[in-house]
Amino acid sequence: MNDLPPGGARAVARCDALGVAPYSDMAGGLYRGYLTPAYTAAQQALAGWMEAAGMAVRRDPAANLVGRYPGEVADAPALLIGSHIDSVRDAGRYDGPLGVMLGIECVDALRTRGRRMAFPIEVYAFGDEEGSRFPAAMLTSRAVAGTLDPAALDLADGEGVALADAGVDVAAYLDAARAPGSAMAYLEAHIEQGPVLEADGLAVGTVTGIAAQLRYEVTVRGMAGHAGTTAMRLRRDALAGAAAMVLAIEQVARCDNSDLVATVGRIEALPGAANVIPGEVRFTIDVRSGDAARRDRAARAILDRLREIAEARDLELATELIHDLPASPCDPALMDLMDDALADAGQPVRRLVSGAGHDAMVMAALCPTAMLFIRCKGGVSHNPAEHVDPADAEVALRVMLGFIERLGAAA
Amino acid sequence: MNDLPPGGARAVARCDALGVAPYSDMAGGLYRGYLTPAYTAAQQALAGWMEAAGMAVRRDPAANLVGRYPGEVADAPALLIGSHIDSVRDAGRYDGPLGVMLGIECVDALRTRGRRMAFPIEVYAFGDEEGSRFPAAMLTSRAVAGTLDPAALDLADGEGVALADAGVDVAAYLDAARAPGSAMAYLEAHIEQGPVLEADGLAVGTVTGIAAQLRYEVTVRGMAGHAGTTAMRLRRDALAGAAAMVLAIEQVARCDNSDLVATVGRIEALPGAANVIPGEVRFTIDVRSGDAARRDRAARAILDRLREIAEARDLELATELIHDLPASPCDPALMDLMDDALADAGQPVRRLVSGAGHDAMVMAALCPTAMLFIRCKGGVSHNPAEHVDPADAEVALRVMLGFIERLGAAA
Repeated sequence: MNDLPPGGARAVARCDALGVAPYSDMAGGLYRGYLTPAYTAAQQALAGWMEAAGMAVRRDPAANLVGRYPGEVADAPALLIGSHIDSVRDAGRYDGPLGVMLGIECVDALRTRGRRMAFPIEVYAFGDEEGSRFPAAMLTSRAVAGTLDPAALDLADGEGVALADAGVDVAAYLDAARAPGSAMAYLEAHIEQGPVLEADGLAVGTVTGIAAQLRYEVTVRGMAGHAGTTAMRLRRDALAGAAAMVLAIEQVARCDNSDLVATVGRIEALPGAANVIPGEVRFTIDVRSGDAARRDRAARAILDRLREIAEARDLELATELIHDLPASPCDPALMDLMDDALADAGQPVRRLVSGAGHDAMVMAALCPTAMLFIRCKGGVSHNPAEHVDPADAEVALRVMLGFIERLGAAA
Repeated sequence: MNDLPPGGARAVARCDALGVAPYSDMAGGLYRGYLTPAYTAAQQALAGWMEAAGMAVRRDPAANLVGRYPGEVADAPALLIGSHIDSVRDAGRYDGPLGVMLGIECVDALRTRGRRMAFPIEVYAFGDEEGSRFPAAMLTSRAVAGTLDPAALDLADGEGVALADAGVDVAAYLDAARAPGSAMAYLEAHIEQGPVLEADGLAVGTVTGIAAQLRYEVTVRGMAGHAGTTAMRLRRDALAGAAAMVLAIEQVARCDNSDLVATVGRIEALPGAANVIPGEVRFTIDVRSGDAARRDRAARAILDRLREIAEARDLELATELIHDLPASPCDPALMDLMDDALADAGQPVRRLVSGAGHDAMVMAALCPTAMLFIRCKGGVSHNPAEHVDPADAEVALRVMLGFIERLGAAA
């Protein structure tokens, strides 16, 4: 099997292969929504690669694809390696899939060497980490971790298709839960999606945890009116008010001058005609920091500014807290193992926090978690320009294999 | 005939009577499309009311209903009074029909008094001012004004029914044109569809003309990125830039402190996910003023500000001019007559521009035009909540009758 390309490069190439039709739901770019035709096509390709790596493949009740590589001890708790295969709209190719591909390469490398660990390894390709189809995120990892409220499944996508009609059996969805104790650890490799590793000249780094995140849905209501007949002084323009709010949110985050970030990613003005003053605007706010207290202070400052703007413009304001995700630290013992694996691979040891959420934060409810970040060019992600050097993926694969061996030795 | 209700109230009541089946094509609301069953039913009712007011009724080749009240001088050019009887979907009852009903009431009042002007009066009920059935607007007034291109008649509605098969003889359509010189003036009364008269506590006002309109499509491009991992100082957020632009547009229009209005009615942020910094935003700008030079100055100021904002934020900016509609001023001498008629009726004189288009802008090609705006509640229009106080319609009727007398005296 020495004529195979190096596993890291192959993992990157497989992400590239899944970046186009039929593995994308949009023309001219990558969008892979949960349970879409592109999602199904990607699972078919992955199932073939998992089988070729020596795994038994199943699709669990939450429509996660799972490959299992048996261990020497029959009922030993498994090492789970995973990430997600859904994407945002007009996405990059590596955010998510690279972690799945590297999991498959780990197993393939073990199989190639004839190596079997005491514990089984299960590679999870999760389904909706991004929440870019249904108005919820990480449903499928929550189902696996056993932390999903069944009421959360009463969802419809932007076109009104209910989750229950999208290709999963909602009644059986929670059966995707793993039995407590059935997992010894969860390992996720992911691109950094930020500029820290690149700035420090490092291929990979040990993740210390995931930043605390708040997400709000904001609705601003004014008065719709004819764009030609309503004098400026008589307007209650919901979009002009929302514009002032977007700038206030940016200003609060900029002035904090820390790791704090605040983003308005989605906005909608109704009724949405060029000749009608918007009567209602809806938008999202996403606030994050490695320090939950800093995050909460910023969110309070933002909501205060929004109320002031609404009052000054005679607009109604409604804000709804959608997510409140606490910081999710990685397991200290596993971080030490990861640092050791880095050193074994000849890499400088570097620890860093994740500003982005990952399935790992959900899986932490089930078992100890570890994450490895991989450098991406310019820190760019959620963008077609997302880029990973295959040599860095090769380093990541070596570190992951070292981590697995050290985990076996420690067990 | 003294037991008749006042004509203004009757005009409002007749609009109400036409607000339901069989005069509407939709259940539970008002929609009257050009040449639909509801349109024909409305014409039958109108024909009866026109005849009762002493008019000879005809349906012209463009399917306009026309009532003629003869003058003392046989071939004198006619005063035309009109508006439209078609409506948008889920419409109010007064936008259009009220002007037709008030025209009928003018004639009825003259007949009741035994008064005959030197000139004939013709009341036009136009057919498709709203353009809400076929993808064109004001076909029937353009036919009357003699400005309709026959090629414009090659149309089909949303269900594929050609205009030629909808109940008119397309070959004869242009015969609806009036001979040049056959009209001395065109008078249109219409609800304001805006809040200016209400804010100033006025029942009616003299319209100075129909605003010149510019419409732009704007595209702002920055750099999409992950909302959790991209430091504030490294962002090129297209939505934050667009928000600054929306506020700048509002500010330019507000500071002009005139009839100038500028509106951003539609906005879209891409990719449009809560956890992605928008890389591209598209929005519309609609700029109007009765004074085209003022409008153009404002548009230049807006575009200058947009360029400054884009440059300061390292964003790309593309603007495309979509519409450039010239202003259609009302006739200055007729505006003076209208002001005098307002004063005669004990009304404060108030002039205002029409931000919306009306058949009058088309009729201006045939003869001098005058318009009278009538207060509507909250400025609401194109909405079932559209409301006119019958007392205001009564004032409008008195002003129109005064205008007709003064027109007779001036001729």
